Amino acid sequence: MRREVTLRDVAELAGVSSRTVSNVVNGYANVTERTRVRVQRAVEELGYRPNVLARNLAQGRSGQIALVVPYLDTPYFSELLQSVIRVARARGYNVLIDQTDGDAEHERAFIAHGSRRLLFDGVIFSPLGLDQQALADRDPNLPLVVLGERSSDGTFDHVGIDDVAASRQATEHLLDLGRRRLAAIGDQPYATGEAAQLRTRGFREAHEARGLTAREDLIISTPRFNRRDGAQAMARLLDREDPPDAVFCYSDLVALGAIHTLISRGLRVPEDVAVIGYDDIEDGAYSNPTVTTISPDKEMIATTAVERLLLRIGSPLPPPGVELRAPHRLIVRESTAGRAASAVHRGTPPMW
Amino acid sequence: MRREVTLRDVAELAGVSSRTVSNVVNGYANVTERTRVRVQRAVEELGYRPNVLARNLAQGRSGQIALVVPYLDTPYFSELLQSVIRVARARGYNVLIDQTDGDAEHERAFIAHGSRRLLFDGVIFSPLGLDQQALADRDPNLPLVVLGERSSDGTFDHVGIDDVAASRQATEHLLDLGRRRLAAIGDQPYATGEAAQLRTRGFREAHEARGLTAREDLIISTPRFNRRDGAQAMARLLDREDPPDAVFCYSDLVALGAIHTLISRGLRVPEDVAVIGYDDIEDGAYSNPTVTTISPDKEMIATTAVERLLLRIGSPLPPPGVELRAPHRLIVRESTAGRAASAVHRGTPPMW
Repeated sequence: MRREVTLRDVAELAGVSSRTVSNVVNGYANVTERTRVRVQRAVEELGYRPNVLARNLAQGRSGQIALVVPYLDTPYFSELLQSVIRVARARGYNVLIDQTDGDAEHERAFIAHGSRRLLFDGVIFSPLGLDQQALADRDPNLPLVVLGERSSDGTFDHVGIDDVAASRQATEHLLDLGRRRLAAIGDQPYATGEAAQLRTRGFREAHEARGLTAREDLIISTPRFNRRDGAQAMARLLDREDPPDAVFCYSDLVALGAIHTLISRGLRVPEDVAVIGYDDIEDGAYSNPTVTTISPDKEMIATTAVERLLLRIGSPLPPPGVELRAPHRLIVRESTAGRAASAVHRGTPPMW
Repeated sequence: MRREVTLRDVAELAGVSSRTVSNVVNGYANVTERTRVRVQRAVEELGYRPNVLARNLAQGRSGQIALVVPYLDTPYFSELLQSVIRVARARGYNVLIDQTDGDAEHERAFIAHGSRRLLFDGVIFSPLGLDQQALADRDPNLPLVVLGERSSDGTFDHVGIDDVAASRQATEHLLDLGRRRLAAIGDQPYATGEAAQLRTRGFREAHEARGLTAREDLIISTPRFNRRDGAQAMARLLDREDPPDAVFCYSDLVALGAIHTLISRGLRVPEDVAVIGYDDIEDGAYSNPTVTTISPDKEMIATTAVERLLLRIGSPLPPPGVELRAPHRLIVRESTAGRAASAVHRGTPPMW
């Protein structure tokens, strides 16, 4: 192994002081152009790499932000993750990623455990297990932006779509098809997070707006929003005497699981049962049938979250926490509109 | 904001020297039990958090490893990522994640750019754009474990499955069905990575082993291994006068894209065209039809990669680089076996 090149080596070769090399490396203005060029040549010649950790320590920052989500193998999060990394990198930040499995203790450690503080300058956080009180009890010096599940309490920013409005729109789409025995899969009445409750509220409101009553017995709770939960919940619904003719699923994964069960049982989608999902993950654009969905503007969510976090990191006093709404839209595909949707869809991007 | 609690504050409250507090916080043995308890009480009372960054600087380590992959929205990588994080965390390491988009310059910066060195102690790396020479020219002090695309050159460890054997097995499965016009989707003859070439070699070898000749004109190149590439390649194959009766796809995403095209064109899978994928991502277990695939042992790959990297990080002299083979197996589902596979499959975990 080669001996490490030091600041002192660079100073010696350039014929300047270590202090001057440090000024050049850190981009400070108090250096003449001539000296700067001389130092940079020495840096290149020796292959000197400034010690980022030492520099961060001196500046009290790490140049890293953390992204903490419940599940990394969920396409919604991995698609979001990709955008967060791209935006953060463009602003000169690395992204440290952790997955909590929705475990409250793990989540708490991430926002309270100040010993990690200097490893990241702020956190973009999607809590699942943590209740509002635990969130309020966090390290008050940690810049925080929350995605998904939680409304802002005024001390952090929250970025998300309007879940109630989006869920109402999804439900209205099923009612517009003339379906009247609507089921909902994904309710979590006892969860600390809000996403599921907001979606159930939208489901009920869409019914009420038309003078109908949501069938409470067709609202199925699931522990997670994944394929397996969707498949199992759909099986329970089909075992009833009066199975539904349409299903609002609280994620595309749940919808894909539900469709899997329907097809395994020999039922047709959407003729026998129409299915709508939520999240607009890529799977749903290629599945058979393709999945009608609520599409949140993920690029906007990622960009807004990173920008707000960097604003907080750069502010001497924390700005008040705000609710930031990203837009969403309904994308109609085969799982509600049948092959007709396919014909329309096939000619347009982002398919091929 | 509260003033930061310092080591000195703890020392004062505990009535000991700062040096003693430092010894306790860093877990050194030269402290009496009585003193240790007194210091820890003071630490808890004041809510003191040791400065990890400063400690790492003193110890010349960061407690972080980096995982660098081409695409984070690829389910294969996000499933792998999850396992790497779990294993690393159990060993007390954080995981810093970056995505390169397969860009050679970006990849090079990550392994050569020593300025980041102290931010991570080693890298688990899945290069795509970088050639073997650029990989050899990396920072020689950086512990490195490579996944996928590259064989070891003796200076780093490589963890992967036997791509040639797995591809031969996939191809043999299609030949066993009596299919004789086999296509392959995913070749990358000019790529710097090896994965695609190894799979094409396995495809050819399976034919040769039975005295058959692979149809070279049915081997289709694609820029990536994603759904869109699979869908487009399948469309090109179907536009031929003699379309294939079976397709070996170099990833499950490619297979899902190919199946999407087949079904859009009114063809039956597997009756008209049998399809096999590669990677065993969760999508393929729930899609319609479900996808027959080569399943690499991802948990084993992740565990081996982390363990080997930590071994390298902890070694004063780097151990010689080795090739490490994880096992793989063929999982037969509906896209080659039809509903019969489904019937068998439906009763078994991990479905429901």
